[in-house]
Amino acid sequence: MKNDLRVKNAIGRLVPTEVNGKTVIPYQGVGKHRPTGNKYGPRISTCIDFPDDGNKLIPSLKEALIKAGLKDGVTISTHHHFRNGDLMAVQIFDIASELGIKDLIWFPSASFECHEPLVKYLKDGTINRIEGSMNGALGRFTTEGGMKGTGVLRSHGGRYQAVQDGEVQIDIAVIAAPSADFFGNANGVDGPAACGLLGFALADSQYADKVIVVTDHIVPFPCVPWQIQGNYVDYVVKVEKGGLPEKIVSGTTEITKSPDRLLLAEMTAKFCDIAGIVKDGFSFQAGAGGTALSIGIYFAEMLKKKGMKARFARGGSNKYLVKMLNEDLVDYILDGQTFDLDGVASMRTNPNHKDTSPFTSYNYHGKGNFAQLVDVVILGATEVDVNFNANVVTHSDGVLLHGIGGWQNCLFAKCTILTVPLFRDRIPVIRDEVTTICGPGEMIDVIVTERGIAINPLRQDLLERIKNSGLPIKTIQELKDEAEKICGIPSKQKFDDEIVAVVKWVDGTIIDAVYKIAKPV
Amino acid sequence: MKNDLRVKNAIGRLVPTEVNGKTVIPYQGVGKHRPTGNKYGPRISTCIDFPDDGNKLIPSLKEALIKAGLKDGVTISTHHHFRNGDLMAVQIFDIASELGIKDLIWFPSASFECHEPLVKYLKDGTINRIEGSMNGALGRFTTEGGMKGTGVLRSHGGRYQAVQDGEVQIDIAVIAAPSADFFGNANGVDGPAACGLLGFALADSQYADKVIVVTDHIVPFPCVPWQIQGNYVDYVVKVEKGGLPEKIVSGTTEITKSPDRLLLAEMTAKFCDIAGIVKDGFSFQAGAGGTALSIGIYFAEMLKKKGMKARFARGGSNKYLVKMLNEDLVDYILDGQTFDLDGVASMRTNPNHKDTSPFTSYNYHGKGNFAQLVDVVILGATEVDVNFNANVVTHSDGVLLHGIGGWQNCLFAKCTILTVPLFRDRIPVIRDEVTTICGPGEMIDVIVTERGIAINPLRQDLLERIKNSGLPIKTIQELKDEAEKICGIPSKQKFDDEIVAVVKWVDGTIIDAVYKIAKPV
Repeated sequence: MKNDLRVKNAIGRLVPTEVNGKTVIPYQGVGKHRPTGNKYGPRISTCIDFPDDGNKLIPSLKEALIKAGLKDGVTISTHHHFRNGDLMAVQIFDIASELGIKDLIWFPSASFECHEPLVKYLKDGTINRIEGSMNGALGRFTTEGGMKGTGVLRSHGGRYQAVQDGEVQIDIAVIAAPSADFFGNANGVDGPAACGLLGFALADSQYADKVIVVTDHIVPFPCVPWQIQGNYVDYVVKVEKGGLPEKIVSGTTEITKSPDRLLLAEMTAKFCDIAGIVKDGFSFQAGAGGTALSIGIYFAEMLKKKGMKARFARGGSNKYLVKMLNEDLVDYILDGQTFDLDGVASMRTNPNHKDTSPFTSYNYHGKGNFAQLVDVVILGATEVDVNFNANVVTHSDGVLLHGIGGWQNCLFAKCTILTVPLFRDRIPVIRDEVTTICGPGEMIDVIVTERGIAINPLRQDLLERIKNSGLPIKTIQELKDEAEKICGIPSKQKFDDEIVAVVKWVDGTIIDAVYKIAKPV
Repeated sequence: MKNDLRVKNAIGRLVPTEVNGKTVIPYQGVGKHRPTGNKYGPRISTCIDFPDDGNKLIPSLKEALIKAGLKDGVTISTHHHFRNGDLMAVQIFDIASELGIKDLIWFPSASFECHEPLVKYLKDGTINRIEGSMNGALGRFTTEGGMKGTGVLRSHGGRYQAVQDGEVQIDIAVIAAPSADFFGNANGVDGPAACGLLGFALADSQYADKVIVVTDHIVPFPCVPWQIQGNYVDYVVKVEKGGLPEKIVSGTTEITKSPDRLLLAEMTAKFCDIAGIVKDGFSFQAGAGGTALSIGIYFAEMLKKKGMKARFARGGSNKYLVKMLNEDLVDYILDGQTFDLDGVASMRTNPNHKDTSPFTSYNYHGKGNFAQLVDVVILGATEVDVNFNANVVTHSDGVLLHGIGGWQNCLFAKCTILTVPLFRDRIPVIRDEVTTICGPGEMIDVIVTERGIAINPLRQDLLERIKNSGLPIKTIQELKDEAEKICGIPSKQKFDDEIVAVVKWVDGTIIDAVYKIAKPV
């Protein structure tokens, strides 16, 4: 990046004061940065410019993109509800490339392996940068310094905040929708590529200058429910295939069979029980992945045994959560993203399986959000340090391989637990310092590893509650030492001075920078 | 009003160029005024300022209003889903009066008889003006020149447009809600004062600086469905009674027994049938009131006989519409306001009974809206002129007695029918010129009276379709002459030069002015 002015932020990380030509604010601490000014107001539309009969169908995505003003330098957004079955992003940039358009900014809500073909457009300058998660091949390419602009990583809530506050102005939003009508009303619960909901595209629909809905399933007006409201939509494109249904569903819908992970899950659930968190009317969120799923199952068993029920579970929904809802062990699923077809079906038919959005769940620049109401959230991390700071975007080798997702936003739950293995591939997970800080330690309450549980000293209340419980409570330093005893002290990854991406905190400030990894000598 | 600069607008009416100190745009013709600039962006909020546990409960409305910054000159909004059972407006201005606060602007989505006590606050300067409907006593008081500021009448869609575009900035929105949680999520389908939906408060929640939800029915988080999203809400107040359920329901839920009105209804339905409007998959909207209800029943009978079904009906919903939905004569009710308890129950339980809002249904400064997709809308009017211009806000005596409601917005349907009696109390309804123009004649296709049907000459297609049908087709001039033959030529109401209110068109321009009625000599 050109501007090399850097300052140390409130968590001690050296971060740039300008990113992609715009001044940015260094992280100030949790709850310290107070935004000023007003939300972004998109251009006022008028019915004059829209067809009298409401029919916004356009023959092809290419025509729609051209009509929407595709040109050099514009920002194009997509959502990730189709997950690894997304067909939009590559098509959009294929079209842009064919038209010779350069320097685009891609603003996805997340990227997946299926987006690997975009590396060539990062190489040839069709895409200037990605503001969103840079996973897999895109992450590696970025960390090796290949991307022209600087990547910007935001949480799901931070993405909504950035759009709402006008930090990112989306020129063209492309919203792939499993079901839509000609007016642009759209949902994710119907159609051959049903994926559940479309909440990650909400900000895009509300704030983008031009909104294109793409679907392979047109229904007569009205498309009900209208998770995306046609009144925000400019064009509707009918395509042969809107997404690959077989790849929409996350692969991580089976409970773990790994004894280590099962142990993690069991310990975590037991901790929650002993700490008094599992009780009548409590609420929880557990991410995808085998460990998290297993914890949900333990919770369900506990509730059944105690004759209690939870008030709500936040999803990522899956068949196990749906089973809890159907067995009346939880009143509501507040779902941000469906992980399997049981989740999709339940959202379609059960009014207590409610779709949410990053606005309701995660936006820090709202009048509160749902994440802070959750009693306990169980998350993962790539690294944790002795101050409980945690990393989710890079591994210890410095390579960007994950997005933040809702992880940062979830830290605002009343109790945040990270379940991590003590080491991965003989590389310790608990470090003196994490490679990249995504979450400040003060927000992280408990670290559960297969060899013991560390409780943040800030949570004396929790320490008090689990006293004499027989749970293997250790200090975080003890856990780190234990890992190093087995794996040795890990060597430090070497970096160049060049910043390839920045990580935003939930309030839009810069919490950390990601550096170009040094070429092996 | 102070500034007396007036210009003739595109429909030939003399309108002011400044209203309440703000420059306004004279009506330019249908689809002629193109808005510029951006939507209003409310102040950016932050979770820092809201309770960690999400509990926004405040002990009383008074405290909430003070916390929300109640002071001289602010704009306070309320909605009218409780209809004549509203308890908020009078309470709010009682509190303001008690605190000695002056010059408030009341921005209701509609007013009812129950608001008569506010006349005293218009008199003593607590309220400067009403921007909204001035019905009953408020209308009479305004038309007699009693209100300090100038009234501004907007359609439901125009109200959303004005808020969205920043023409009206709401300082404090008070949203009475039949059911809510402590976070501010709220709906109208549950609780002892269930009124259906809360769509008229949507703009208020999205754009007001401070939002207060008032309810007599607190449920544990989450209040589902959240028709009002707590993420927009600042304070929640629990009161003994949020509204009077027995007065929420409109009195006009019985089909008419008047033979004249039944004739009107039958002729209208027959016209729609012969004109080819009633067909498989068609859509319709009929307002409240006995005539409109009866038309719905005729439509239902026709569909049953033909073995057809409608795609959607726009409500005001009522038991007759709900019956159609339950008998599978219509796929969806797209409901803006429930008129009876059958409507409320149906919205609560039937996913095909969808709540809508002025944003989805009526906002002219959106990317299209639902009103324009409706095949036929049947409305009333106080007066119609020989150019098909119509009035809904004043009677021929010049007194403001009605709001616009969704009337202007509905004119964008594919066929707009006004059903009116030829005369009321021996005063002809069809005139050379209406007292106040609310809808331009070019938008009004058909006038149905008990003595004949006039079709707008602009609709040659309709004239063609009903040729030789045996329907009593007349010119509008013939209908006028017929009325005058019976009632005599009506005398003209005398007005002072003072403008007491203006009527906005759906795009925010001024279509007409309402003058102070001259004192009888």
